[in-house]
Amino acid sequence: MPAIPEQGPASGGYTPTGRSTPTRNRERAEYDRAAVHAILDDDYLCHMGYVRDGAPVVLPTLYVRVDEHLYLHGSTGSRPLREAGGEGLPVCVTVTRVDGLVLARSAFHHSVNYRSVVAHGLARRVTDQDELTAALDALVDNVVPGRAADSRPADAKELAATAVLRLDLDEVSAKVRQGGPNDEPEDQSLPYWTGVLPVSRVYGTPEPAEDLAPGTPLPGYLSGR
Amino acid sequence: MPAIPEQGPASGGYTPTGRSTPTRNRERAEYDRAAVHAILDDDYLCHMGYVRDGAPVVLPTLYVRVDEHLYLHGSTGSRPLREAGGEGLPVCVTVTRVDGLVLARSAFHHSVNYRSVVAHGLARRVTDQDELTAALDALVDNVVPGRAADSRPADAKELAATAVLRLDLDEVSAKVRQGGPNDEPEDQSLPYWTGVLPVSRVYGTPEPAEDLAPGTPLPGYLSGR
Repeated sequence: MPAIPEQGPASGGYTPTGRSTPTRNRERAEYDRAAVHAILDDDYLCHMGYVRDGAPVVLPTLYVRVDEHLYLHGSTGSRPLREAGGEGLPVCVTVTRVDGLVLARSAFHHSVNYRSVVAHGLARRVTDQDELTAALDALVDNVVPGRAADSRPADAKELAATAVLRLDLDEVSAKVRQGGPNDEPEDQSLPYWTGVLPVSRVYGTPEPAEDLAPGTPLPGYLSGR
Repeated sequence: MPAIPEQGPASGGYTPTGRSTPTRNRERAEYDRAAVHAILDDDYLCHMGYVRDGAPVVLPTLYVRVDEHLYLHGSTGSRPLREAGGEGLPVCVTVTRVDGLVLARSAFHHSVNYRSVVAHGLARRVTDQDELTAALDALVDNVVPGRAADSRPADAKELAATAVLRLDLDEVSAKVRQGGPNDEPEDQSLPYWTGVLPVSRVYGTPEPAEDLAPGTPLPGYLSGR
C-alpha cells in the first residue's frame, strides 16, 4: 500500500467556487491542474492562513505537493497543528512567485509579474506513520532534490516531534500576470523608460558547516544549483 | 501638514501580546522596532490574511512601510478593500524573506534561514487624498527606488480606481533564523555534507517594452540593480 493515498490522474481542472473566483483581474485566473501544479512545484515556501479567536493569522511554512495533496510542515508545539488534530483546520494556503517588476510610463499601470496559487480547505494532521515519513521525505526533497536519501532519516522520537498537515487540493485557483506594461495609448509619447525588470531566486555558493569533516565532497545535487 | 500622519521616533520595541508571541522557537522572536523595520524595508511583497464568511483568505499584495504604518496596495474592486471601508478589516500581514537552506546531517534538523514579520491589526482604507498620493508614491518607490518621480503621476480618475489600506504597526513581531545547522552531537560523524545553501533575490537585465522609443536611456536607478 502506498504511504500517500493514491488519486486519479491530474487531468482537467479544479472547479471554480465563489471564493476561488477572484473579484478583480478575473481573466488572470487559472483552474487547470497542470498549471496549478507547475506553480506549486516551483516553490517550497507558502503562507498559511487560519482563524484564531475570530482573527486571521498568516504564517510562513514549508510545503510540498504530492499528487493532489499539499503537505505543510510544522512542529507539534505550534498552534495550528494542535488545532488541526480533530475535524481539520480551515486554512488558506497561498504560494507566490515574483517574476518581474513591470514599469509602466504611468504610476497607475505599474505592476508585478507573478504566479500565485491559492488553496482553500480543511488541513488535517497526518497521523499515519508511513504517510508521515513519505511526506517528510517529500518536504526535504522539494527544497533540495535528492537530499532526503542523503541524510539521516528521522528516528521515532523525531517523528513524534514533527507534525505535518495535509490539505487536499480541491478548491484551488492560480493567478498569473506576465508580459510587459499596459500603458494608455495617450501615454506612449512620455519620455519615461518602460519595460520589465526580471526577478529571480538564485542560490549562492554552498557554505560548509564549521564542523564538516575536511574532504567531504559537495553532493552532486548541490553543485548544479 | 504632512500627507502621512506623523508619529514619534521608532525607538524601543513593540509590546508582545498573546498572538504576537510564538508558541515555538520563542527565542527567535524579536520586538525591536529597528529590527522589524529593517525586515519590512527589505521587501515589497506581503501576504495579507483576513476572514471572509468565517474562513481565512490569504492574498499576496504590495506594501510599503512608512514610519509606523504599512500601506497595502489593492484595487477598489477587490473584496478586502471594500470590506475595509467601515470600521476596519482585521488583518494579519506577513512578510518573509528566505536567506538560506540549512542542510543538517539529520533530516529532522533541516531548516531554513529566514527573516519574517507578522503584523496584526485593523486595516483601514486610506481616504485622505494627500495621504493616498503619498502612499502610492511610497509603494512605487519601495519596489523601484526613484521610480515614482520618473513616471506620470496618477490622475484623479486613476486615484479613484486605486485603493490603499493602512495598517498601523502596533501588534508586531519578527522572527529570524540564521546560522548553520544544529545537528545532534552523535550525528557529527555521519558522512553527509552539511552546511547552508544561500538564497537570494536577484534582478536580471531590464527588458525594454516593445514600444519604448529607441534611444531612451536606462534610468540610473535601474542600472545598479
